[in-house]
Formats: sequence, structure tokens, C-alpha cells
Amino acid sequence: MTTQQLIDQIRIKKSFLAVGLDVDLNKIPQHLLEQEDPIFEFNKAIIDATHDLAVAYKPNTAFYEAYGIKGWMSLQKTINYINSTYPDIFTIADAKRGDIGNTSSMYAKAFFEDLNFDSVTVAPYMGKDSVEPFLAFENKHTIMLALTSNEGAFDFQTLNVDGKELYKQVLETSKTWKNSENLMYVVGATKAEYFTEIRKIVPDSFLLVPGVGAQGGSLSEVCKYGMNANVGLLINSSRAIIYASNGTDFVEKARAEALNMQQEMAAILG
Amino acid sequence: MTTQQLIDQIRIKKSFLAVGLDVDLNKIPQHLLEQEDPIFEFNKAIIDATHDLAVAYKPNTAFYEAYGIKGWMSLQKTINYINSTYPDIFTIADAKRGDIGNTSSMYAKAFFEDLNFDSVTVAPYMGKDSVEPFLAFENKHTIMLALTSNEGAFDFQTLNVDGKELYKQVLETSKTWKNSENLMYVVGATKAEYFTEIRKIVPDSFLLVPGVGAQGGSLSEVCKYGMNANVGLLINSSRAIIYASNGTDFVEKARAEALNMQQEMAAILG
Repeated sequence: MTTQQLIDQIRIKKSFLAVGLDVDLNKIPQHLLEQEDPIFEFNKAIIDATHDLAVAYKPNTAFYEAYGIKGWMSLQKTINYINSTYPDIFTIADAKRGDIGNTSSMYAKAFFEDLNFDSVTVAPYMGKDSVEPFLAFENKHTIMLALTSNEGAFDFQTLNVDGKELYKQVLETSKTWKNSENLMYVVGATKAEYFTEIRKIVPDSFLLVPGVGAQGGSLSEVCKYGMNANVGLLINSSRAIIYASNGTDFVEKARAEALNMQQEMAAILG
Repeated sequence: MTTQQLIDQIRIKKSFLAVGLDVDLNKIPQHLLEQEDPIFEFNKAIIDATHDLAVAYKPNTAFYEAYGIKGWMSLQKTINYINSTYPDIFTIADAKRGDIGNTSSMYAKAFFEDLNFDSVTVAPYMGKDSVEPFLAFENKHTIMLALTSNEGAFDFQTLNVDGKELYKQVLETSKTWKNSENLMYVVGATKAEYFTEIRKIVPDSFLLVPGVGAQGGSLSEVCKYGMNANVGLLINSSRAIIYASNGTDFVEKARAEALNMQQEMAAILG
């Protein structure tokens, strides 16, 4: 999917919601456990109930790898289902990969070719040659960690390097990499005022924003400081939507939560 | 495996060699492609030919994920084969994972429980709560990136934070984390003099060292500056061993390369 197609979808749906598909078998409705592939059945039900309200789905690979080969099969079925049934959806493999050049190429092949995701999240610690192999794929997007929403973000990301915080240096350096127009960035919502500074460095890039809702971030504050002319934001919500209920009404409750967020977004888009 | 058991194996085998199982179907002997699972057959042949010369095997997950479910099955068969046939081998999942707390727990479950590796590599960018879930597993080892061997290492890892390089800050901070005795570190061999400084911060920890051989690092230099009383080093070699030949003699050539390294190590161990 091209960036323009993503922007178009945001305008059509009046939504910049990404739904995180972080499926934990201990948290889903227990009647689904009778199915042959409970993870896929859960995802399918959530996707069918919310696809008109969300522009993106973001399975986090950890939740699939934890179940071994069966989990990887559920991931493959999920992405195949989205790509074949809802081709206008932007798909994000939340994998946070990164390795030396030839190895990152294998990861890029895994997520962009084998699984056919539109985008994948990557970690910046290993620098340029760990990220550029992902950037080489046309109409694929590489979403690099900049400032995350967890407590540990303040261990290293906000350290002062030569007068500026590390995450700002990460943003600035990444702009010099080949095909950097294919970069998006993860920026947590927990401190909305950070967005002002971030937008000075990457005014045009899309930002994937976790941490709204359950982790305490405010949607209106993030939009106030982080939105650009093309919206430029994908707000992720995982648990608040997919675990809105763990009963037989989980589909209706998930849709109601997604609708709440979409309506708030529609109001902000005006 | 406990750290003491690893040290014992190093003494018994007079080797601190880790063999990287980074299997690329374009590089293995082409006659193996007729097999049902060429990746596993290749690994099995390499392991059988080198298990008395190496103390560890390190499959890099990227090379398995690139082949989708079939690749993940090859990875599972490989680790199962090592664990059942050569239980004294230390196994490393080179996965470079890291995510917010509950998600890192799922990765730890994937590699320590489902696949039953002895250790996994992780990335430090997201800080304490992204690594501590791995450290909670008894007799499992978490190998965190500190200073990597690639060119991009100098993009961020060596930036000056408050008077010291970032990788040193990463090492120091990680020592304050809960169960930090379960940490090992990735330190590239390309600049052996860095080991002197690193040993001031983590004198007792095991270091996993890529970059000897193909990437230009010197084994004797690394040992001179990096070895401690318990050896404290695992030297990784991937391509130089597993792709020593891509003909029908690949097993013999791989063993010869591993034997060269083991003999050099035995001489250093004295």
C-alpha cells in the first residue's frame, strides 16, 4: 500500500485507528478454545466487526511465536484473511526486528514477501545497515522505534547525547538513510508535549502511536501536537478494544469500543 | 544449562566456539534441496560433524522466518535435535527481541519454553521492562546487544552520553536490573581494544563475540583483552564454517574449519 492510499483510507473512514491483535489464549472468550484455531477465529471475529472503523491492524509477533508453529500459522492465516478480504487495510507486523545487513534482509523477506505485510516495526540500536534492507522494498513501510510508551523508554531513549535526547538523534540520523521516505516512527502517547519537538524533525512522517487509553495517553493531546496536514498519525489500541469483553458479546463490545475511538477521531478530523 | 555447566563444557572441549546456523537455501549444497527439509538436514549434518569442537550453536531466527512456517518447523526440529542428541550443548536463539513487559514475556515463553533454548539475544533500546521478563527464567540466559560488529554500530552505540559511550551506559544500567546475573552481552570483535573498557564494567559476564574471521576480528586479540578467569567468551563463527564448501564435501570442510578454530582456542586456553 502506498502512503497516499493510506491517507485516502483515513479520509474515507474518518479514522486513523490501528487495532492491535495481541491475542493471549488466557484472555479471549473461553468458548473459542473449542475451535481448531482459536487465535485466528478470534482475530477474524474482531476484524469483521471493526474493519470499517479501523485503517490498520497490528498483530504483535510475540503473541504468535509464544504458541510455536501453531501460533505462526495463526499469524499467517490472519494476514492472509485481511489481505484477501479487506485489501484497503494497512497491515503492520509489530516485530521490532533488526540485525546486521544480510540478516535484516531475511527479516524483510519474511514480513514483506512471505507474509505480505504492508509494514514492519524495527529497532534502531544496530544503526543504518540494520534498517536500510527493509527500506529497499517499494510500497512497504518500515516503522522504527523512536520514543516508546513504556517505563524503560527513559533508560536510554531520553539520555542526552551531545546536547539532545537519543531518540531525537535516532530520528535525525535515520533521515539520512537511503529510501528514508519509507520510514515511519513509533512514538508513545504518554507524553504528548514530546510531539512538538518530534514534528520539528520529522514533520511529514507517519507516527504509530501506542499508549492512548490503557497506558494513559490522551487522544486529543496527541492530535493537538502530533497531527500534520496528512493526519500523519496511526493511533494503536489493543487491549481496550479486543478485550472489551471476554464473554459471548466480545464482538459487539469490541465494535462499540472501536466506534467510540473512531467517532472521537472523526470529530478531530472535522 | 547453568553458567557453571557451560564453563565446564569449555574446559572439557578446550573450546569456546559457537557455530552460527544461518542457513540460506541459496548457499547450501544444492543436492540437499532434494530433501524434504533441506534446512534441517543441513543443520543436522553440520552439528553431527562439529559437536565435539563447539560448545554452542546459534541459529539466527531471521533465516528461518524468511521461509515462513516451513522455516519455523526447521528451527524447531534443529533445536529439538540438539537438545535430545547433544544435551551438553549451549543453545542460543539469535532473535534480538525486545518489547514492552507483557510482550517480552511472550517472547521469553516462545524461546525458553516452547522452543527450549538455553539463551536468547535481546535488544536494549526499550530499557529495563523490555529485558527483565527474560531474566526471570532460572538457568536461562539473556544475551543483550551492547556493541555490535556491524558498521551501523557507530551510528548510536558509540555516541557520547554524559561523558561515556552509549554501549557502556547500556552495560552499566543493565547491571542494576533484577536477576541481572542471567545477562550475557553481545560484543563485536572488530575493535579488540574495546574489550578492556568493557571488562571494567562487566568483569564476570560471558560475552558472545561475532565478527572474528569473515568480519575481520582477531581471535588472539579478543582473548587478550576479553578473557576472564572463567574464559567468559563465546566466539561465534557462522559463514566461515557452515559455508566452507557448498559441494558434497561440505561436512568435512566445515569440520576442518571448526577444528582450526578449536585448536587455536585450545592453544590459548593452554
